[in-house]
Amino acid sequence: MTHHIFPFRIYYEDTDAGGVVYHGNYLNFSERARTEFLRDIGFESRKLQDDQNMMFVVRHAEVDYLKPAFLDDGLSLETSILKLKNSSFVLKQDVFREKELICAMKVTLVCVEKNTVKPVRLPDGIRAGFQDYLEEET
Amino acid sequence: MTHHIFPFRIYYEDTDAGGVVYHGNYLNFSERARTEFLRDIGFESRKLQDDQNMMFVVRHAEVDYLKPAFLDDGLSLETSILKLKNSSFVLKQDVFREKELICAMKVTLVCVEKNTVKPVRLPDGIRAGFQDYLEEET
Amino acid sequence: MTHHIFPFRIYYEDTDAGGVVYHGNYLNFSERARTEFLRDIGFESRKLQDDQNMMFVVRHAEVDYLKPAFLDDGLSLETSILKLKNSSFVLKQDVFREKELICAMKVTLVCVEKNTVKPVRLPDGIRAGFQDYLEEET
Amino acid sequence: MTHHIFPFRIYYEDTDAGGVVYHGNYLNFSERARTEFLRDIGFESRKLQDDQNMMFVVRHAEVDYLKPAFLDDGLSLETSILKLKNSSFVLKQDVFREKELICAMKVTLVCVEKNTVKPVRLPDGIRAGFQDYLEEET
Repeated sequence: MTHHIFPFRIYYEDTDAGGVVYHGNYLNFSERARTEFLRDIGFESRKLQDDQNMMFVVRHAEVDYLKPAFLDDGLSLETSILKLKNSSFVLKQDVFREKELICAMKVTLVCVEKNTVKPVRLPDGIRAGFQDYLEEET
Repeated sequence: MTHHIFPFRIYYEDTDAGGVVYHGNYLNFSERARTEFLRDIGFESRKLQDDQNMMFVVRHAEVDYLKPAFLDDGLSLETSILKLKNSSFVLKQDVFREKELICAMKVTLVCVEKNTVKPVRLPDGIRAGFQDYLEEET
Repeated sequence: MTHHIFPFRIYYEDTDAGGVVYHGNYLNFSERARTEFLRDIGFESRKLQDDQNMMFVVRHAEVDYLKPAFLDDGLSLETSILKLKNSSFVLKQDVFREKELICAMKVTLVCVEKNTVKPVRLPDGIRAGFQDYLEEET
Repeated sequence: MTHHIFPFRIYYEDTDAGGVVYHGNYLNFSERARTEFLRDIGFESRKLQDDQNMMFVVRHAEVDYLKPAFLDDGLSLETSILKLKNSSFVLKQDVFREKELICAMKVTLVCVEKNTVKPVRLPDGIRAGFQDYLEEET
């Protein structure tokens, strides 16, 4: 079992007048990391939309803010899969500054048909690509 | 017991290429609404920082995405208080489009000393202002 | 000749670790104000897209940053029309804190057919609505 | 004479309901690229603030939007220096998708003392680092 690692940098746009990373932006980081995770197992958001008429929507998110992050920080977002169901899955997405856990997220996504936004079965290719990243049996 | 009501509009900046409001932005809306809630009971973020050396940090957030929202939607964010402790409190913050619940959030905030970022007792004035918005005994 | 006035507030999401409003966000404010300007003269972005298959794209923007703005500032964005052509127009969009000019923008927009993104003639209704806000003959 | 190259990806957060990259975000991209440019010649934003009590503020920006960019696009931001004065400089910052110019920006920055926000002479180290990227004599 492995984690997907997405490194990223904190710029002025990510921070707020409290001098730290704005809390709402961690969900943006989680989405960047998910996109790269999917790309790394062979799936691109736009192609999924255009070719398979499919997209992922976020159904639920939980975010624990443990430590502040700052301008110029080099952070790393680690993604693994907590649950894998027929049309949905739960990701564990943790933001680290070196060994220090900054922010811990759990994000539930549903695979939907693009126009109706009705849940559809997660494609087998994605399901297969997820296997190495599964945290537990589902 | 009452709710604080914050009306707001969806602009292009709030939406994404999926044609809906970007999921990460609901936390931004919750922060705008909290800011106005505090202002309406007599407290301004900058003055709290400058005069009382105090600010609020988000410790935890849970977000349920129930329905999509769209460009030009006129939405309303209703805020009430689920729990009120010594230095922290939990807000219920729900986004509605007329009667329809779009997004349900629970946000835990901690009142901290600005420089040390150590928890401090929530000022009595804020505590008093919160009473009308309390959902349950704490 | 008159200006369209759009009042708005600065929240944490608008600021950065420099303690001021992040420079990129002024274009966001200009877009919010344009949207409300169009709404006030009877046109809504989504309806223009859905019913008339038309939208506005920004072709050029010039921004002068004159004074910093801060958390909790109540600002006002004044919009008028500098030039009005067949399919394009130039807006003057100035951000004020009371009488003080914070940021001066000129934004060139083009009315395009939604799918081809080809320029089309600005609808007569919008052209008529613009008359009161024209800064100069075109 | 050379350009600084900053590659970046377009995520959902960067796009809007028009299906393209939101126009205001190009200034965010320019700031990310400037930050990495400065880092590559040996200067970090936070250290400049903390150690030298100095920061850069954007005084003026001009943006030409030439082509739309889309979700999943891999773009490249090329930065060079158009003018270099005592305390200010003008950057040329162009966004490309392969050979295609998407967006052309000119951004004027001023080096200021952090607390007074008064212009100060650009440090010699930065001035020296800029030499290879100068588009013209100043």
